[in-house]
Amino acid sequence: MRLTLHTDLSLRLLMFLALKPDGLATIRDAAECYGVSRNHLMKVATQLGESGFIETVRGRGGGLRLGRPAAEIGIGDVIRTTEEDFRMVACFDPGRSTCALAPACRLRGALADALWAYLSALDKYTLADLMVPDRSMRRLLGLEDPVVRR
Amino acid sequence: MRLTLHTDLSLRLLMFLALKPDGLATIRDAAECYGVSRNHLMKVATQLGESGFIETVRGRGGGLRLGRPAAEIGIGDVIRTTEEDFRMVACFDPGRSTCALAPACRLRGALADALWAYLSALDKYTLADLMVPDRSMRRLLGLEDPVVRR
Repeated sequence: MRLTLHTDLSLRLLMFLALKPDGLATIRDAAECYGVSRNHLMKVATQLGESGFIETVRGRGGGLRLGRPAAEIGIGDVIRTTEEDFRMVACFDPGRSTCALAPACRLRGALADALWAYLSALDKYTLADLMVPDRSMRRLLGLEDPVVRR
Repeated sequence: MRLTLHTDLSLRLLMFLALKPDGLATIRDAAECYGVSRNHLMKVATQLGESGFIETVRGRGGGLRLGRPAAEIGIGDVIRTTEEDFRMVACFDPGRSTCALAPACRLRGALADALWAYLSALDKYTLADLMVPDRSMRRLLGLEDPVVRR
């Protein structure tokens, strides 16, 4: 049971933008920081933009920024948007299931309960909750100079 | 976010065996009922056997049966056994993660909470809970004659 790479990168792009609250970031910056494909991150940014999680400032000096404060971006909502497939097993889609038991089986209900519990747990977190302590995260991404010990 | 086909088939094989409490079943029977690969189901049976969920009776007239009553087989336990990969995102495995944020990021903790909630929800179900009403399920699998309306 894994989240898709698309969701993984979506969360990481949001965290990257949360670390630059005063400025704009580019896809290139984020891709370099994480060592991931710029093309893939572009697709991620397009979807996050369509969903209002991020916004694009066009023109010279433009870039990306969060669409609203990090404390107003729920992690459950992000994952509901970015994960394409919540059909835990084939029979989640009864019309297309080939399982002979599908009409009577209670497995689907049990797994739906579990999925609800999973997303509810994530609804307790906002993007801001993931960013503590943000200074050490900025340092890890090279967005802030390392501490100089005197 | 999906469970693997291996887990899907594991649950279905257990349900098949739960529908035959008085007799033994064969891989061939179960594979035919579900229209799935006999080879794949054999691998599933091997793992379920090693974990004690099912047992094999060898020899002529032998076959498979549940290793303990369906009411004592927890669905959370089955899924913990059959799902190989609970690393929700790459950084669940910090030693192998390439994400620059891994040392400071709280995403891992949030996703671990959610996974715990998911499995805890499944811990409330046993195999027996999924088998109600078992008579209509037996009928769907052709293990019982259809009701004759007079």
